[in-house]
Amino acid sequence: MISPSLATMLCFVETDAAIDAQPLGRFLDAAIERSFNRISVDGQMSTNDSVFAIAGGGSGVRVEPGSDDERLFSGAVAALLKQLALEIVADGEGASRVARLVVHGPAGGSEPVARSVANSPLVKCALYGADPNWGRVLAAAGQVLPESRDVAFDLSIEGIEVARGSHAVDLDGDTHERLRQAMRAPEVEMTLSFGADEESEIWFCDLGHDYVDVNSEYN
Amino acid sequence: MISPSLATMLCFVETDAAIDAQPLGRFLDAAIERSFNRISVDGQMSTNDSVFAIAGGGSGVRVEPGSDDERLFSGAVAALLKQLALEIVADGEGASRVARLVVHGPAGGSEPVARSVANSPLVKCALYGADPNWGRVLAAAGQVLPESRDVAFDLSIEGIEVARGSHAVDLDGDTHERLRQAMRAPEVEMTLSFGADEESEIWFCDLGHDYVDVNSEYN
Repeated sequence: MISPSLATMLCFVETDAAIDAQPLGRFLDAAIERSFNRISVDGQMSTNDSVFAIAGGGSGVRVEPGSDDERLFSGAVAALLKQLALEIVADGEGASRVARLVVHGPAGGSEPVARSVANSPLVKCALYGADPNWGRVLAAAGQVLPESRDVAFDLSIEGIEVARGSHAVDLDGDTHERLRQAMRAPEVEMTLSFGADEESEIWFCDLGHDYVDVNSEYN
Repeated sequence: MISPSLATMLCFVETDAAIDAQPLGRFLDAAIERSFNRISVDGQMSTNDSVFAIAGGGSGVRVEPGSDDERLFSGAVAALLKQLALEIVADGEGASRVARLVVHGPAGGSEPVARSVANSPLVKCALYGADPNWGRVLAAAGQVLPESRDVAFDLSIEGIEVARGSHAVDLDGDTHERLRQAMRAPEVEMTLSFGADEESEIWFCDLGHDYVDVNSEYN
């Protein structure tokens, strides 16, 4: 969970724009889908995460339906919520490193694959140890792939292709060192492709000693 | 996984009884179902866990189909595999404490509930901290219950009822102290009931600092 002693994540967004509840709610729902619903600290649902938006209209500037202002406004809501969601992962229960994973395919399966990798304690411990252990990424993905599926995958970490056509790429010494350096950064990007158009994106944090302390020594 | 650098769990059972491959395999399958398939270290599948049984027949004692010997033999296989499986959980990647959870119902849902609790990092960290944090048990269970289900549950830890009819039991000071003491033992038993006959049992270990070390500092 995000914070087990608190109630649990309450997000309040305020604007002085003048906009009706219905379009505001629609922009908020769309933004939540691409932000708070795309993060995972430890795969554990909390009981009362909530996002509220309040438009007081104090500026007197009306956001007219279909206007450029409306597009700018909805874009700003989306950007703000994504920023807040990413801060939650980065602050999440002793996190020291954040990963962004983009999964392409398999058709109908990119979402469970993304969540399985993001919530794998082995992947998260390897991230904590700054090790580009892509076998763990694949093992976690394989756990939710249909048994009979003949999978072919490519995997890149920080733009470095580590597996292509289901086989390990033989990295030269320099590239391997670059990869190890990249894993030590506060943010690491991974792309796992099963060659389908469908795409799921998720942000997750590592699992280290501080997570254990936060969640076992809270009394 | 059980041991990420090894291949991964290979279990060999040998007997000098004379028994055919077919009944031996049947007893083995039944025993695996109630032992190795009922444990979880961290919910992560490994690629090549295998159990083999070899009956050399050296004793010259034939296990006749339908005989008392056959019942004794299959019981011994079941007991042995359960013992071995429990040792794996107890030895699992830095484990310091093991829990046995029995889930009664809901109909058709006891298995996912058992696994969700067993694999919850929050439940496992509380177990590491020896805290009878039953809210985490219920939260992990609730994560896989159908949304619309009107659940009523009872929960006991080491024979002490902590929740009854979905409400916390008000424990007196002595009972609470007994509960805290029981949580410090190497094995903790929990029973979660949704009032249906269906039963699923699972053993799992805690998640502590040694798990993080084993899985992040293996290089």
